Amino acid sequence: MSENNNPKRTELSSLGEFGLIDYLTKGIELKNPSSRYGVGDDAAVIDHVDFQTLVSVDLLVEGIHFDLGYTPLKHLGYKAAVVNFSDMAAMNARPTQIVVGVALSNRFSLEAIEEIYVGIRLACEKYKVDLVGGDTTSSRAGLFISVTVIGQAKASELCYRKGASENDLLCVSGDLGGAYMGLLLLEREKAVFKANPNMQPDLDGFDYVLERQLKPEARLDVVDALEKAGILPSSMIDISDGLASEIKHLCKASGLGCAIYEEKLPIDPMTASVAEDFKLVPTVVALNGGEDYELLFTVKVTDFEKVNKIPGISIIGHMTSTAGEAILLTRDNESFNIEAQGWDSLSNEEQKKN
Amino acid sequence: MSENNNPKRTELSSLGEFGLIDYLTKGIELKNPSSRYGVGDDAAVIDHVDFQTLVSVDLLVEGIHFDLGYTPLKHLGYKAAVVNFSDMAAMNARPTQIVVGVALSNRFSLEAIEEIYVGIRLACEKYKVDLVGGDTTSSRAGLFISVTVIGQAKASELCYRKGASENDLLCVSGDLGGAYMGLLLLEREKAVFKANPNMQPDLDGFDYVLERQLKPEARLDVVDALEKAGILPSSMIDISDGLASEIKHLCKASGLGCAIYEEKLPIDPMTASVAEDFKLVPTVVALNGGEDYELLFTVKVTDFEKVNKIPGISIIGHMTSTAGEAILLTRDNESFNIEAQGWDSLSNEEQKKN
Repeated sequence: MSENNNPKRTELSSLGEFGLIDYLTKGIELKNPSSRYGVGDDAAVIDHVDFQTLVSVDLLVEGIHFDLGYTPLKHLGYKAAVVNFSDMAAMNARPTQIVVGVALSNRFSLEAIEEIYVGIRLACEKYKVDLVGGDTTSSRAGLFISVTVIGQAKASELCYRKGASENDLLCVSGDLGGAYMGLLLLEREKAVFKANPNMQPDLDGFDYVLERQLKPEARLDVVDALEKAGILPSSMIDISDGLASEIKHLCKASGLGCAIYEEKLPIDPMTASVAEDFKLVPTVVALNGGEDYELLFTVKVTDFEKVNKIPGISIIGHMTSTAGEAILLTRDNESFNIEAQGWDSLSNEEQKKN
Repeated sequence: MSENNNPKRTELSSLGEFGLIDYLTKGIELKNPSSRYGVGDDAAVIDHVDFQTLVSVDLLVEGIHFDLGYTPLKHLGYKAAVVNFSDMAAMNARPTQIVVGVALSNRFSLEAIEEIYVGIRLACEKYKVDLVGGDTTSSRAGLFISVTVIGQAKASELCYRKGASENDLLCVSGDLGGAYMGLLLLEREKAVFKANPNMQPDLDGFDYVLERQLKPEARLDVVDALEKAGILPSSMIDISDGLASEIKHLCKASGLGCAIYEEKLPIDPMTASVAEDFKLVPTVVALNGGEDYELLFTVKVTDFEKVNKIPGISIIGHMTSTAGEAILLTRDNESFNIEAQGWDSLSNEEQKKN
């Protein structure tokens, strides 16, 4: 287990709750002009002046969202922060602050929770976000992380899911399915290791898809690029549960349908190659694999030239008037209804139970 | 167990994650002018215009912060929201929005989580706070609730822990120790019931202290009363971990000490009577019992007349220059150093383990 890698072990109870908070937040400097007061009082204070304030929360639960058998705690902390930053990108906003709640059992040491915070603080540094508060407590079993992100945007810049119009172009950043392939590789090596603990994991050469799973990034760079190109997307969402699921959300919120082209789906060669190893169709992986944290957005047809010039953005289809109907047009000119098979923690739990 | 009281049982997995969120947030109307967009997108949107924005998070963990053996789920939801509103009161701010994260195992039904949300929404209605977002997921075991509260205040009205000056008067709202006595009663009846399941719990006549434990309120009314009286406290904190612990926080943050008078500590007669039943000294209960969610604050000596006129506020002592030294002056004119023995989830967990 990752939390036992560190030879030093300090019991959390030796610091107590306030000692722990002091220890974990030592040396934090507020960098955002909007962060007026951080850790150390009953609440943090933020001043967004002329901006709107955005807020979103995500929970990460051990055994449901992550497996400590192959997830380093530092990566877990990094990912917990980044997936929340991605929610701000999805609104065409910038993350500015986070507050973090951690509940963990006494099987974790101080060094373990510190690793989580190292990851969170690394993400904060990279994305210029201030960690302004939190709560740390015991749990009877397992590790729970709750990250609430605060962000800002001008009211006129915000992108909701509901703003798409008929014929708007559907665009996606980066490539899809990689994070899911990384997960399958990690699960496979875990199973091999369980069967024979002397076997060393064979993950060489799979860096890209492993990183997509273990260390995802939020596409704030795309928010910047769109602004620079003078494009305000008509609707936007981030791809956390898979393209198929997110496309359904955009269609539902906008009261429209869409058509996407199989040949336009951006798939990295390594994703395709790992998919084939697992006897999976790369297109299906791109449609249903979750956790890529790319942005899915719509732009007016008149923005075609502008959006086409932005590196790393793929135009994969367009919005149609048939509400709720999402169509995939294959390379063979067949058309299929897209069904969302995205990851659902409640249904998945049920599957495990049965 | 409370979650089995309801004869109807709908499995959470039958709705799926998005269905569940839709179900739980159905009919929510945004009431705060600052709530621009609520549930249903990647983030909620808030506009505090000329106000500062405050944010705070609290986790409530089954088996650590609550026992479903005697905590009705509706009360749990109410309390989860209210303890966060109390953090806003502690800053002299008003809560405006919350986002809620719930992780729960499949031993809970839809009706169970609905009860939690009924309690949360009841608290929101009473305190005029909007529920603007959340995350719902599975856990392998147990129930975890994460509430993040957003609030607002004018920058000039904010009260930090650090603002007290020497000779400032120490004031406390309401009375102390009741919530702890309620907890002891509930724990005693649980033990009796465990020993003999045919025994009916004998909680009649203890309504006040039981309500202090199960259905605490946030003292936003005190924030209003102070404003009306023209008093800006020099420092403020809410009493969640016990007076002794919170007084230490105020002293430390302000670089001062304090002296408080035993005879001035506000203790309800029922709290005193239950304390005596348990062979506890009421003063010790008032000092160390947690979860009263009253406000502890300091005001300038020149505000004495004004604060003295506000009903339900007790002046219990004053700030001194001896940094870090908190003194209790007893009825017998003896003086004791106050040691914080407040509740600490990490240390308490350790005690349970040993």
